[in-house]
Amino acid sequence: MAHIALEEGVPGIVSAFGFRPETAKPMRELAEILLRGPNSLSSAEREAIAAFVSNGNECRFCQLSRSAAAAEHRGGGEADYQWIEEVKANPDGADVSPKLRALLRIAGQVREGGKKVTAADVAAAREHGATDMEIHDTVLIAAAFCMYNRYVDGLATFQPEGMAVYKPMGKMMAHDGYVRRAS
Amino acid sequence: MAHIALEEGVPGIVSAFGFRPETAKPMRELAEILLRGPNSLSSAEREAIAAFVSNGNECRFCQLSRSAAAAEHRGGGEADYQWIEEVKANPDGADVSPKLRALLRIAGQVREGGKKVTAADVAAAREHGATDMEIHDTVLIAAAFCMYNRYVDGLATFQPEGMAVYKPMGKMMAHDGYVRRAS
Repeated sequence: MAHIALEEGVPGIVSAFGFRPETAKPMRELAEILLRGPNSLSSAEREAIAAFVSNGNECRFCQLSRSAAAAEHRGGGEADYQWIEEVKANPDGADVSPKLRALLRIAGQVREGGKKVTAADVAAAREHGATDMEIHDTVLIAAAFCMYNRYVDGLATFQPEGMAVYKPMGKMMAHDGYVRRAS
Repeated sequence: MAHIALEEGVPGIVSAFGFRPETAKPMRELAEILLRGPNSLSSAEREAIAAFVSNGNECRFCQLSRSAAAAEHRGGGEADYQWIEEVKANPDGADVSPKLRALLRIAGQVREGGKKVTAADVAAAREHGATDMEIHDTVLIAAAFCMYNRYVDGLATFQPEGMAVYKPMGKMMAHDGYVRRAS
């Protein structure tokens, strides 16, 4: 049971957003810009960074929904779902560009604490072609998911098990995004 | 030196916001709602929660600017600056209401990880009169500062030492807020 009176059966951050629409608005906007806005990193790459951080923070809702979104951005096939599992489990061995590998390293450091990011981490990312904007966005995606993860778990939201629940969610988020449109 | 090309001499999150105004906008709005929006917790109490979390995360810019804002919301006298130092150092011994003490306990748990918040922590806050909304906002303030702190430190922003620099900043933030107005 959630720590406060959230709508029952509504999963993860969606229930928290429903409880407090005022704070949901900027939180949705931030996710939209970071994960789907114009960027030299693909949305699949940015969702992979979010999934990797959320997995490290052991937040089931965020890591499975981000994984689904990452996979759906790549086409949503079985190989895409396999790919994101490999990225989360072992970014150094996964089939990612050297640049994304270096950015995942920075994201992992941010997750542990901002001061853990070293000049050498940043230099390595730059060597593989990362721009200042890409480094900035990686730091902020990682930092933002340290917020979203704590929000989802700190309220003890309902977090269903199994990728089957998150696949349609990932599809929706990949295609329609994070900002609620007036219907 | 910062990890990316931020404007020199501009402190902390202000330099990061200047680098990426698109993400600054929702991040400023979130801070405004959480710390200065209508609430049954005073702004001084909410800034104290933010200062306490930022102190735990050892983010100099955030903890000193939040401390200054908390003190300024109480009047900005020497005793107010002394008060916030006590809250950060030892919330259990500080001169705070039993409710705020229980909320600070929840905030400290969120800082370590969302799952650390127990039903007993929440029950204790409720016993001292905390509402669901106050518990929600405490969790989200703590979570949000886990983002702001990592953002400020993960980019290695310029963070001057000494409260003298942060006092006018706290005054400005307490009185004018976090959302930039068109001038």
